[in-house]
Amino acid sequence: MKFEIKKRDAAARICRFTTNHGTITTPNLLPVINPNKMIISPKEMKKLFGTEIVITNSYIIQKSEKLRQKALTDGVHKLIDFDGPIMTDSGTFQSYVYGDVTVDPLEIVKFQKDIGSDIGTILDIFGTPDQTKKEAKQAVEETIKRATQSIPYKGEMMLACTVQGSIYPELRTTCAQALSKIEADFFPIGGVVPLMENQRYTDLVRCILSSKQGLNPSKPVHLFGAGHPLIFPLAVALGCDFFDSSAYAKYAHDGRMIFSWGTLKLEDISELPCCCPVCSEYTATELKKMDHKKQTLLLAKHNLYVSFAEMKKIRTAIAEGWLWELVEQRANSNPYLLESLGELRKKEHVHWLEQFEPISKNKALFYTGSHTIHRPLINRIHNRLCTRLQQSSDTTIVLPEGKKPYSSFYSQRIQRILSKNPVQIVIQSSLGPVPIELDEMYPFAQSVFPETIDSETKKYSKKIFDEYLTNQKIQYWDDVKEKFFDISDAENDTDWTIQRISGVANMQFGLKASDALFHGDIRIVKSKKTKKIRNIYCDSQHILSMRASDGLFTLKIRGAQLLHSSFASPHLRVIVENDAVPFIKDGKSVFAKFVKECDPQLRPYDECLIVDENDTLLAVGRCLLNRLEMLSFQSGLAVKSRETLSES
Amino acid sequence: MKFEIKKRDAAARICRFTTNHGTITTPNLLPVINPNKMIISPKEMKKLFGTEIVITNSYIIQKSEKLRQKALTDGVHKLIDFDGPIMTDSGTFQSYVYGDVTVDPLEIVKFQKDIGSDIGTILDIFGTPDQTKKEAKQAVEETIKRATQSIPYKGEMMLACTVQGSIYPELRTTCAQALSKIEADFFPIGGVVPLMENQRYTDLVRCILSSKQGLNPSKPVHLFGAGHPLIFPLAVALGCDFFDSSAYAKYAHDGRMIFSWGTLKLEDISELPCCCPVCSEYTATELKKMDHKKQTLLLAKHNLYVSFAEMKKIRTAIAEGWLWELVEQRANSNPYLLESLGELRKKEHVHWLEQFEPISKNKALFYTGSHTIHRPLINRIHNRLCTRLQQSSDTTIVLPEGKKPYSSFYSQRIQRILSKNPVQIVIQSSLGPVPIELDEMYPFAQSVFPETIDSETKKYSKKIFDEYLTNQKIQYWDDVKEKFFDISDAENDTDWTIQRISGVANMQFGLKASDALFHGDIRIVKSKKTKKIRNIYCDSQHILSMRASDGLFTLKIRGAQLLHSSFASPHLRVIVENDAVPFIKDGKSVFAKFVKECDPQLRPYDECLIVDENDTLLAVGRCLLNRLEMLSFQSGLAVKSRETLSES
Repeated sequence: MKFEIKKRDAAARICRFTTNHGTITTPNLLPVINPNKMIISPKEMKKLFGTEIVITNSYIIQKSEKLRQKALTDGVHKLIDFDGPIMTDSGTFQSYVYGDVTVDPLEIVKFQKDIGSDIGTILDIFGTPDQTKKEAKQAVEETIKRATQSIPYKGEMMLACTVQGSIYPELRTTCAQALSKIEADFFPIGGVVPLMENQRYTDLVRCILSSKQGLNPSKPVHLFGAGHPLIFPLAVALGCDFFDSSAYAKYAHDGRMIFSWGTLKLEDISELPCCCPVCSEYTATELKKMDHKKQTLLLAKHNLYVSFAEMKKIRTAIAEGWLWELVEQRANSNPYLLESLGELRKKEHVHWLEQFEPISKNKALFYTGSHTIHRPLINRIHNRLCTRLQQSSDTTIVLPEGKKPYSSFYSQRIQRILSKNPVQIVIQSSLGPVPIELDEMYPFAQSVFPETIDSETKKYSKKIFDEYLTNQKIQYWDDVKEKFFDISDAENDTDWTIQRISGVANMQFGLKASDALFHGDIRIVKSKKTKKIRNIYCDSQHILSMRASDGLFTLKIRGAQLLHSSFASPHLRVIVENDAVPFIKDGKSVFAKFVKECDPQLRPYDECLIVDENDTLLAVGRCLLNRLEMLSFQSGLAVKSRETLSES
Repeated sequence: MKFEIKKRDAAARICRFTTNHGTITTPNLLPVINPNKMIISPKEMKKLFGTEIVITNSYIIQKSEKLRQKALTDGVHKLIDFDGPIMTDSGTFQSYVYGDVTVDPLEIVKFQKDIGSDIGTILDIFGTPDQTKKEAKQAVEETIKRATQSIPYKGEMMLACTVQGSIYPELRTTCAQALSKIEADFFPIGGVVPLMENQRYTDLVRCILSSKQGLNPSKPVHLFGAGHPLIFPLAVALGCDFFDSSAYAKYAHDGRMIFSWGTLKLEDISELPCCCPVCSEYTATELKKMDHKKQTLLLAKHNLYVSFAEMKKIRTAIAEGWLWELVEQRANSNPYLLESLGELRKKEHVHWLEQFEPISKNKALFYTGSHTIHRPLINRIHNRLCTRLQQSSDTTIVLPEGKKPYSSFYSQRIQRILSKNPVQIVIQSSLGPVPIELDEMYPFAQSVFPETIDSETKKYSKKIFDEYLTNQKIQYWDDVKEKFFDISDAENDTDWTIQRISGVANMQFGLKASDALFHGDIRIVKSKKTKKIRNIYCDSQHILSMRASDGLFTLKIRGAQLLHSSFASPHLRVIVENDAVPFIKDGKSVFAKFVKECDPQLRPYDECLIVDENDTLLAVGRCLLNRLEMLSFQSGLAVKSRETLSES
């Protein structure tokens, strides 16, 4: 198995996942194929919807003499006529629906291997939401026991070991941790169907997060039984990589049409509010009049067109950096889903989610309502403001929210203030406090908040503002502006570029990074056209460049040396194993499997120092993973190397 | 021209619109056909997207010798090869884009008639947002003058007279009122393209509302130049019936893909997040590699598939009663669009919008965030609570939010309270105060709010709660519950059905309606299965039935008589002209053109008394229109008659 992160946003990731039957992209959806009753064949699914992987049920195959023989002789790929990867389920869900199933937990694993399943599943114990904690604990223990016993039987097959634990977060985490210690390849999160059926999305969020928090992050995670696209964006944002849909068929059979925002009964509507090939070819009236079999087929197709399109939309949102926007928009379709976003504000969840959040995105951050301000990335920014930025004065002059970038909009005011005294200038923005020197840095300039925001956000950003300026003497512009009226424009030429580069450096590289970087003879080269900072030289050596798109620094090797000599390990370090050193020196990037340790403060797309086990600086690069991921992934890059320290 | 309301929600309406080239449904979208350069022919649009009506530009046709001759000889329908209705524009937008156009305002109207346009447009003066009020006023005056002068030239053609007035609401309303006085057939709202281009959605909302507030409600309204589906749901909810799209072609030409939630550049994305036939057939890579002409064609098709699907979704939302939900969900896609919803909270707008709001909907009201509580329908409910409901005691016991219907959830508490004393019981719900007797009435039972709601909504519903209970002695359940602990279950059999029917009657029919209806010998028949009230008899005569779906009464003729004799005209009346009386007596429904007057308090789907000019009761029915509409519509039904007073 190979599972490599290619792109990311929130705790979501676009990965390449390699199986014995080809490489596919995640997040992805596995249509459930009933080997007894295929409405649409997997082959046709591939053609119509771009289906890359399917799931079928080994329990059903094993129960049927005919299917079992064919599967054992020809393999499951021939049985359902699909040459892509096939996952098999084990009968756990059947045991939940129909009571006990007559199958041996180890036998069914062996059977899945024997029929050539790419990913087999253990026979875990389905934990229902109404279990007592004691019952749930027993079920978890039995699941872990069965998983452990199943491992020796898996052979070449990947084994999916399902996380159970009912609605008890600590049981979920314990189960996840235990399953991460054995050689499991794939982690379904199980027992969530009753939660989805009853729209208990807050409980669902808790189950996903507590499971994820215990799991090895380098293996795929599958939200078992989640087939309605309404839940896809949120579940993906929390780190789910796979979904399976039997809903497409069940809903179609009942005359229900799935949409990304909900469900409609065909009989209730007179038009088809959709542009999929089915809804473009037929009218509601035509569909209603059809015989049930044909109607079911067409509705199933519609349901899959819509579900796969949502998957594509989610992957696009990850690649483009607007997954949280999509999550918040989608949540608006359902009051309970909307409510579940409140769960994400809890400290422990924000803390966990923040680690996966890239430090910068392609797209501006969009306000969608009262949940936006609580995104993990904004939380990080607030924390970094309070812990990484030196306050340069005991007095702060506060400017109100204005047009972005603030330094252009308020250039005259800033000049007047700075010509008089070296106070701090902070914008009281919708996002919270914005020290003027950071105003071009993501997300301060790259965010869109309307003039009028909800009072909850206002209150929260005021709170952050007050926290940030706790010990400051605060002067609001309107109260003090007269003091600056006597300053002529001629005096207004204070160059505060040094403040800007110091502020950005500290936010990116840590408290006092500016002291490490900016001493000696500093030369700053700006773009002639935009007047923006481009390159920074220290004693004629290029140490930093600033990206125009997000106002963040990229680190040159000389800058890395300065940081390396000022900050003790592991600050900003990615420590590689000795075996990898020659490759790094040769300019190669760092593969995750060679990472020995890593600064826990490093985040995806952060600049980092690549060092050997003796803390000798080897190169400078950009992290693609956080520490948790670097230490667990066995395939793929951890750091993209930019510049190597040439031997001298 | 015939224009009849068939279904409705918010200030939106689904209408049948009859032209010389067929009858179509509104709201609808007119793709712009450039007669010089057709990317997709109107015929193909009809086949692919179900296009029913198109718009082309008479100014462009007139400027070209070849097109002009062909149009004058064969007609515009042959020219662009389309047998459905064709609207023509006049060159106003060209004058805005290119400066002055060389066309005579009356000549171009005559030309449009001569080429057989179904709907021609006057050459109005495009009012830009940067105009001073004086300039805008002059432009409005010139537009009105030209419209008035154009009327005699229209012949059989419908004439679209465009509302201008820049961003000045009072000018918009004045212009709309003036155009409503002449024989205009169709009202475009013009001059809004620069607002949409700059995402000035709050200004756009003001322009639409101020125009609509001055317009004759019985004519179609067209938001001129609005081709991006992002704006469709809100504009439709405010009463726009038509949109035109040149965007589909312009965006396609620039490699941009339209989605209901925004726009993406093809070059930026690696997957197509859509399931339209184009996006289902091609991959992003394939589209990117195509030659520009083929790419433009396919993107134009995608853009139209998506735009027409959004129109179908909007019509479905109107028919099903979830248009506000759709508006609020869509607004979340764009911070400025979201902000513009704040404009709708203004008193004058709520007051206007509320008139169009049906009294009950098919679907439960869904909470989507802080805008929900400000919907016009909820505002109405709060007003009716304060003005129509008699407070039955000076003490109110307040129960907290709970499961719905509250009377079942709290049945024990209610019994204990009522067995002790006849106080009022009010639920402090997320929606505001809910007197227990109204708990099954729409929208109190038919609404979904999650347990946790935003603090803005909490604050607002608390305010309404306090207003409603201003003069009451309030006791919260938790503070007084001990008082009721000594009551045994045996005592708990107070029947408070009379309170329920009194409350509902007053909310529906006005203060003291219960006094009019419920005296004498009252018999209440309940469903054996659900225990819900079904029918109410007074002195053995059936006066009311209660609908299980929304807890509202339908009025029988005997009930109508009771209300008629207690309430003076025009309360609850729809007064029909003498000519119509024999038809009404014969059981026919009331056509709008026969309505002479109407109670201004009647709302769509309200029960009403149908009377003649002498206030003799003729029949009882259900309003389909409000007063504004009844008095202006010339086609279609105003009241669906239910029961006629038989002559005795």
